[in-house]
Amino acid sequence: MTSLDHLIKLLSSLPGIGRKSASRIAHYILKKEKAYAETLARQIVQVKEKIRACSVCGNYTELDPCSICSDPGRDRSVICVVEQPQDVQTIEDTNEFRGLFHVLGGAISPIDGIGPRELTFDKLRERVGKDQIKEIIIATNPTVEGDTTALYVVKLFSEKGITLTRLASGIPVGGDLEYADKITLARSLKGRVPYSF
Amino acid sequence: MTSLDHLIKLLSSLPGIGRKSASRIAHYILKKEKAYAETLARQIVQVKEKIRACSVCGNYTELDPCSICSDPGRDRSVICVVEQPQDVQTIEDTNEFRGLFHVLGGAISPIDGIGPRELTFDKLRERVGKDQIKEIIIATNPTVEGDTTALYVVKLFSEKGITLTRLASGIPVGGDLEYADKITLARSLKGRVPYSF
Repeated sequence: MTSLDHLIKLLSSLPGIGRKSASRIAHYILKKEKAYAETLARQIVQVKEKIRACSVCGNYTELDPCSICSDPGRDRSVICVVEQPQDVQTIEDTNEFRGLFHVLGGAISPIDGIGPRELTFDKLRERVGKDQIKEIIIATNPTVEGDTTALYVVKLFSEKGITLTRLASGIPVGGDLEYADKITLARSLKGRVPYSF
Repeated sequence: MTSLDHLIKLLSSLPGIGRKSASRIAHYILKKEKAYAETLARQIVQVKEKIRACSVCGNYTELDPCSICSDPGRDRSVICVVEQPQDVQTIEDTNEFRGLFHVLGGAISPIDGIGPRELTFDKLRERVGKDQIKEIIIATNPTVEGDTTALYVVKLFSEKGITLTRLASGIPVGGDLEYADKITLARSLKGRVPYSF
């Protein structure tokens, strides 16, 4: 196996990259100047060396605590609970949320051997007990595992006088009713929003 | 900009990788053990260090001349002319061709400032003059640039008593050789049509 074949094989192990895409990327790297390959290689190693989990919320960060946890301008009475660190960035990109985050590190999935103990519920309970949290927004994925995890959060904090909310499920904006699946449509019907005048 | 943002930006410059895919890949690398990132980084640099162009045909290779040019079992009377080194591998994968290759290094495209001089026509002429070439199979992409390049090859060798053929239609016009499936490509090799004068 040549080093080209080896690189193609490695690249095709990345998520969303098939053999053809991997080959295309490898040939693109071959065509570019050597400095490009070196920069790309260095950055791949650096990301592993520099990025760690924030000791407060679990978000990826270079400085601990992360820029969100240490920002005095954030609303410290609202925590948005997500499954993965990348979900933090996705929600930040909307510019609609000014509270704090809590990364669980996954969703409850007995089949994969992931129970509540494998996730950061203890730390969440600790944070909620210490800070003056008024609302927990549960932003786990609308999947079986995400819904199970959401129910677990509800169970943990329902008696604590905290408002518990869940991200609305429904038809994506710009989407077509015709192509929505039954479950999504049913959920958007149940969660219908009244017009306010 | 954190090293994570930097990596995402770099990855999204790769062909076929948008911002979302780049973010997904970066997070995948972050989740994997450090050795994985190091292997991937090393392989990206190695491919630039080890792979060079074959001095005979222009194919990517670690040894010069490449394994195809130095294989005594190949039919040395047939040359298949392609645009890019990756096209050699694509045609090899069909197992339908046992001749030699010649990589032009691109296609004639006046808009991009690529004329015949920027491509390896001189070397092709030299090879055809030296060896006993009976047939030249023109396997440039079925695009305007590829067709122009094909006609240029025809013009160069039409008076030399050599059979000139072009890959048969079957590859969608406007498409890219790199993305053709093996069966289509194999069929278009078998059904190649001679130029008539």
